[in-house]
Amino acid sequence: MLDLVIIGAGPAGLAAAIYAKRAELDFVILEKEMMGGGQIISTSEVENYPGIYPVGGFDIAMNFINHANGLGVQITNKEVVGIEAIEKGKKVLCKDGTNYETKTVIISGGADHKELGVPGEDKFRGHGVSYCATCDGAFFKGKDLVVVGGGDVAVEDALFLSKLANKVYLVHRRDSFRAAKTLVTKLLNTENITFVKDSVVEEIKGDEKVTGVRLKNVKTEEKTDLAVDGVFIAVGMSPKTEQYKGLVDLDRTGYVIAGEDCVTSDPAIFAAGDIRTKQLRQVVTAASDGANALTSVERYISANF
Amino acid sequence: MLDLVIIGAGPAGLAAAIYAKRAELDFVILEKEMMGGGQIISTSEVENYPGIYPVGGFDIAMNFINHANGLGVQITNKEVVGIEAIEKGKKVLCKDGTNYETKTVIISGGADHKELGVPGEDKFRGHGVSYCATCDGAFFKGKDLVVVGGGDVAVEDALFLSKLANKVYLVHRRDSFRAAKTLVTKLLNTENITFVKDSVVEEIKGDEKVTGVRLKNVKTEEKTDLAVDGVFIAVGMSPKTEQYKGLVDLDRTGYVIAGEDCVTSDPAIFAAGDIRTKQLRQVVTAASDGANALTSVERYISANF
Repeated sequence: MLDLVIIGAGPAGLAAAIYAKRAELDFVILEKEMMGGGQIISTSEVENYPGIYPVGGFDIAMNFINHANGLGVQITNKEVVGIEAIEKGKKVLCKDGTNYETKTVIISGGADHKELGVPGEDKFRGHGVSYCATCDGAFFKGKDLVVVGGGDVAVEDALFLSKLANKVYLVHRRDSFRAAKTLVTKLLNTENITFVKDSVVEEIKGDEKVTGVRLKNVKTEEKTDLAVDGVFIAVGMSPKTEQYKGLVDLDRTGYVIAGEDCVTSDPAIFAAGDIRTKQLRQVVTAASDGANALTSVERYISANF
Repeated sequence: MLDLVIIGAGPAGLAAAIYAKRAELDFVILEKEMMGGGQIISTSEVENYPGIYPVGGFDIAMNFINHANGLGVQITNKEVVGIEAIEKGKKVLCKDGTNYETKTVIISGGADHKELGVPGEDKFRGHGVSYCATCDGAFFKGKDLVVVGGGDVAVEDALFLSKLANKVYLVHRRDSFRAAKTLVTKLLNTENITFVKDSVVEEIKGDEKVTGVRLKNVKTEEKTDLAVDGVFIAVGMSPKTEQYKGLVDLDRTGYVIAGEDCVTSDPAIFAAGDIRTKQLRQVVTAASDGANALTSVERYISANF
């Protein structure tokens, strides 16, 4: 029986693997994509992983992978389809029919930003289309921007970007917000934010980079073209937790409920990175989770085996 | 009035500064030492800051400083002696008589490992004397080690090191432990750990590196020499919070009480890094705190100004 199975080789899983190797645990790290590294691998530029600057997303992912490899960690390419309870442990089930018996599991499969699914969105991803204002806002100083969404994150993103950008249009399909009232008051009082209500982005236009969006008013069906340099999409995230339902407690949006120590409702399962409930999903907070999850794993094994 | 004053330029403070710069806040970062970087700057080798490997402690500190500098952050050399409440903010008081008025404060002054205060301890620091098993344990594979202390951390360190080392002596001045019972049971059942009770380390000996310790039994006064390659000192930490007493709630050991969001009992003061209550004090968890503290600062400013 293994000490640990780590599911997902993004920054959280790789950080956990680095700590697990140094603690000489008997473990595997499983990743369903050909290449580990997580979401970050497709991010064009990363300015906010402290200590590494400036760097492309691909390079930072490679730094994590090389660090883990350098300590002797090998990533195993397998997709996990479920976890079963066995006596004194868990059985991690893979799509190819193999499985791993283990004392503990760290789930660090990450989360995906929800997409609008409109023309131009995929084409201009990383070239004006972003899903993370905290990550990419600084690249749009003095520019005109669209933020799409109506929840806390969309309003926070619009407020955040209004300090950097020339002009921010907040496009929301309804005429009121799900976001906290204090945030909305703030938003409506911010001079360089325009609230475009009852509207959706129908198309993202550009050549090399984004040059504008076509909006549609969902009540009047009227269409408008808006010239902007960037589109920040904040219509929610979806954590990759489908296969863990019923196994650990999830919040209503699908995140695994776990605090800073990464302990879940099942004492032998730990959740690290974007997949768990937390206020800020970034490379550095994911990496920190990996370290914390491993500390919790060691404490659990010490107390139970 | 500034948006933010950051006190301390270790990994937590520098990470907060990196995020603050990208958010275009009006802020200063104050450091009392000539050189920023925090504790890490005097650590010989760091293997567990994900993405940078292998690296000396000095280099990792410089990476953080250069990253902040690269974004335009300048560290101001000042020692903070207190914080006062003013209308709608705080006044940060410096030893040189100057002060800063600000909407928010992040305190990230770190913590020091308590020392034994015995001959050889300073001389062999980083050459066999360590205050962090998680950080340095991996450098002592197959060696004989002493752990000093009787609390949770000392027992956890002994258990952790027993997996890597040939032999671990746990030296404690009493005949029983403050540590959790399950941990102690585990300890007493671990074959390669010897509990040396009623004893203190009187001297750490060596040439280039540690070669042994002289122990004294506090009941019999008997002295013994023990040949070991490393001494892990786990007799507690002392957070640098003397000047914040009465300002924010501290726990009984002096740490600022704050969760993952770094929010303290004063809504305009945030605590990041080793100085706050947390399970794991490492470079990566400190850096993560810096990012989280800045997120909380922005939320507070958005809601109140």
